[in-house]
Amino acid sequence: MNTKLIQDRLAQFSLERDWDKFHAPKNLAIALSVECSELLEEFQWLTEEDSACVMNDPDQAARIRDELADITAYLLQLAGKLSVDLEDAVLKKIEKNAAKYPVEKFKGSAKKYNR
Amino acid sequence: MNTKLIQDRLAQFSLERDWDKFHAPKNLAIALSVECSELLEEFQWLTEEDSACVMNDPDQAARIRDELADITAYLLQLAGKLSVDLEDAVLKKIEKNAAKYPVEKFKGSAKKYNR
Amino acid sequence: MNTKLIQDRLAQFSLERDWDKFHAPKNLAIALSVECSELLEEFQWLTEEDSACVMNDPDQAARIRDELADITAYLLQLAGKLSVDLEDAVLKKIEKNAAKYPVEKFKGSAKKYNR
Amino acid sequence: MNTKLIQDRLAQFSLERDWDKFHAPKNLAIALSVECSELLEEFQWLTEEDSACVMNDPDQAARIRDELADITAYLLQLAGKLSVDLEDAVLKKIEKNAAKYPVEKFKGSAKKYNR
Repeated sequence: MNTKLIQDRLAQFSLERDWDKFHAPKNLAIALSVECSELLEEFQWLTEEDSACVMNDPDQAARIRDELADITAYLLQLAGKLSVDLEDAVLKKIEKNAAKYPVEKFKGSAKKYNR
Repeated sequence: MNTKLIQDRLAQFSLERDWDKFHAPKNLAIALSVECSELLEEFQWLTEEDSACVMNDPDQAARIRDELADITAYLLQLAGKLSVDLEDAVLKKIEKNAAKYPVEKFKGSAKKYNR
Repeated sequence: MNTKLIQDRLAQFSLERDWDKFHAPKNLAIALSVECSELLEEFQWLTEEDSACVMNDPDQAARIRDELADITAYLLQLAGKLSVDLEDAVLKKIEKNAAKYPVEKFKGSAKKYNR
Repeated sequence: MNTKLIQDRLAQFSLERDWDKFHAPKNLAIALSVECSELLEEFQWLTEEDSACVMNDPDQAARIRDELADITAYLLQLAGKLSVDLEDAVLKKIEKNAAKYPVEKFKGSAKKYNR
């Protein structure tokens, strides 16, 4: 994913509409959270099994793609504002989690995963 | 961002811990939403102005980087499960939004942005 | 539930700590959403079946009671600020929903419930 | 607020539509979180100051009342399922918080409130 290109396009989009004044990190964090809930709404009454088949329905698939796009857009905008390199952050977090959740201790356990 | 590499590392991480059984799309959507709220918690009592300075505090900056990493990780895992190409989805959504929010009509307006 | 008594106690609590300045409706709405996610976190990796048994574990039961209390507290504070009578609002909403979801059309259907 | 009456009406509503099968605590916790985000959406681009005036616009006021009603409905349903007495829980939580946040130490401080 060319995050720089997407961030530039989003910045251009905001600039043209003079919307940057709304985009304080606090507001972008709210918007990101709201978009994730819109995505979650697609799954709320489904069983786990049925949730694996949501892309079979073209209308639902289109809505889900749009919600994932909105989440990605706000995530990239917020990371841009805060000068966070997401790729670097996520790779470091995976290493950190590998140390925090050693295989021998956490294998197959949701209980331990939870706490 | 090399999304394929990150998705592979996350898949490997889950596989080693036998956690994939917990990762139905419904559950990943919940986890994504929960992580966004943990990020939002960092901003909840700040003014918009102060929210622009959160990275000046090294401890808060580290927490925010970790939350952004968690969000990215769940977003990529969920997109992977649902076979959604996030880069393609976001670029299409920007075009769609450009048609939905024409510059001349929405310039500078939060009210219109909201509805 | 004596909502007036609880709202008075919460107002007193904020007043003593000079926290009312943080409690703009926007911030209370964020806090309410954050608390709901903390509650949701308790359920995120559980099956629906297991989620019905969460109160059997005393530690988890205590955490859930605390999260429900936090949600109630922010909900009552926000309703107080906005002068919304929650009892009246919910009873009217039930009537509205009864008209929107007629029994004969929506019986047993999650799909229709969803949309 | 007559929580028992509201809970009975909500139970009746679900029973008539055979929706109780969707209402595992996990799903109700998701629904509660989704409704809180719909409320938060009303505030997301507003300044804190403007958020104090949302009830002046009759349309927005009606939407906010409806969202607060939805949140109350899911909160009461979930508390009912888990046999939690919300009034008791919130009064105990206020006492707990009074001990956790002594006036002399936390007066006027958002920073301390946050952590």
